[in-house]
Amino acid sequence: MKDKPLILITNDDGVSARGIKELVACLRALGELVVVAPDGPRSGMSAAITSLIPLSCTLLQEEEGLSVYSCSGTPVDCVKLAVNELLGRKPDLLVSGINHGGNMSVCVHYSGTLGAAREGCILGIPSLGISLTDYTKGAGFNECCRLGHRLAVQLLKEGLPRGTYLNLNVPNLRQVKGTRVCRQAEGRFINEYMRSENADAEAVYWLTGSLYNALPLHPENDTSALEAGYASLVPCKIDVTDYVFMEQLQTLTEINPITT
Amino acid sequence: MKDKPLILITNDDGVSARGIKELVACLRALGELVVVAPDGPRSGMSAAITSLIPLSCTLLQEEEGLSVYSCSGTPVDCVKLAVNELLGRKPDLLVSGINHGGNMSVCVHYSGTLGAAREGCILGIPSLGISLTDYTKGAGFNECCRLGHRLAVQLLKEGLPRGTYLNLNVPNLRQVKGTRVCRQAEGRFINEYMRSENADAEAVYWLTGSLYNALPLHPENDTSALEAGYASLVPCKIDVTDYVFMEQLQTLTEINPITT
Repeated sequence: MKDKPLILITNDDGVSARGIKELVACLRALGELVVVAPDGPRSGMSAAITSLIPLSCTLLQEEEGLSVYSCSGTPVDCVKLAVNELLGRKPDLLVSGINHGGNMSVCVHYSGTLGAAREGCILGIPSLGISLTDYTKGAGFNECCRLGHRLAVQLLKEGLPRGTYLNLNVPNLRQVKGTRVCRQAEGRFINEYMRSENADAEAVYWLTGSLYNALPLHPENDTSALEAGYASLVPCKIDVTDYVFMEQLQTLTEINPITT
Repeated sequence: MKDKPLILITNDDGVSARGIKELVACLRALGELVVVAPDGPRSGMSAAITSLIPLSCTLLQEEEGLSVYSCSGTPVDCVKLAVNELLGRKPDLLVSGINHGGNMSVCVHYSGTLGAAREGCILGIPSLGISLTDYTKGAGFNECCRLGHRLAVQLLKEGLPRGTYLNLNVPNLRQVKGTRVCRQAEGRFINEYMRSENADAEAVYWLTGSLYNALPLHPENDTSALEAGYASLVPCKIDVTDYVFMEQLQTLTEINPITT
């Protein structure tokens, strides 16, 4: 008899967040689930790793088909610790999320949710990050769960190309219009800080800001899809080499004196 | 009279690290330098951002052509804070480093040095990360400085394509054989943890591990170049979309029911 698929679950909102509980509930029937998630919020941790202090890890829950660990580190630490130390074999699938807040456009670089998916991919696991593009407390996870479940089934069956992971964003709608496979929008944050003062009347800066979209080079990018009421699905690469510019750069002998 | 170029300097080893001091010394003559760097080590912070607590920032040094700020945040926080709050205009160049330790292959994802360069690029600044592939205390920065200076001159003159930043790694040699423009090697870390115990005899895990290179798909990758005694220069993209797989994924109607 074939073993049940082993599915590693993590997130960046912490092991107690609503999104990861919804995710566990919706994937529960697909295999053996192991949750290894941060012990508190780690939003915006990107692919940060912890090297100056040691990690610790607590088994919170263990029952048929589900184990839940809380970990002192970042989302990427959770993935590394799970694969290196906690799991007996390589997972068949990694799902990170469901993040409470969108991770479209350049958020793929800041997001701990996607940092974890990227790490799973580096370690050779078909990996998917799921985000709900709504920060409000009452936001509904139903469409995230429906689409996440379908994608998980597909990934368990077909896998992904080596070096590619998936970034799924789902708008907070009763029913999305569908899923658009699309590219990462070009964007950046603007008005990023609110100045304030600490108790000693010294200036401090709170991160705030809003995502500004450059004129879309390609109309079918993730931000456009989400604004039109679709879920967006962006396949992302570990290899970030700019091959087009690499060729140009090679011809600029001034900075490429290969033999001098 | 044209203003002198404005050059933003940061790193992830902290404002007091030797590498950033060497970098300031070697770029000093090229323009007005503003250093905004973390107040202590932030290695492995990737593109992490600080949102749960406010940032603070201290002017440590101010003299003709050079200002030095210490910042409580991550390398990316330093870049954001500099561009949004501390500098009167957009820098003409961002240089991050010189990192004490290599950032080849997948290290581009974990490195705070490269996180800062990526952020500069997102904000529209020609950006370069420089790393010395040697962790030992006595390692020499001379070749890093020579090649970094040359590249900085070039970037001030010619800029970079929108959405592309540079990752320069330099081996610790008296003289490198040259600079190879190359692609990011495919690799991952293995044997990542050393188990130990805390004072309560509970298991803790220290991050360790070594970089394992998959069989190179392309012989001209950064790890190969460095091993052969060259500096490696990889142009990297903000847009991580896998365009090849995107087309395949679009044809899989099962996960792409655009109209349902």
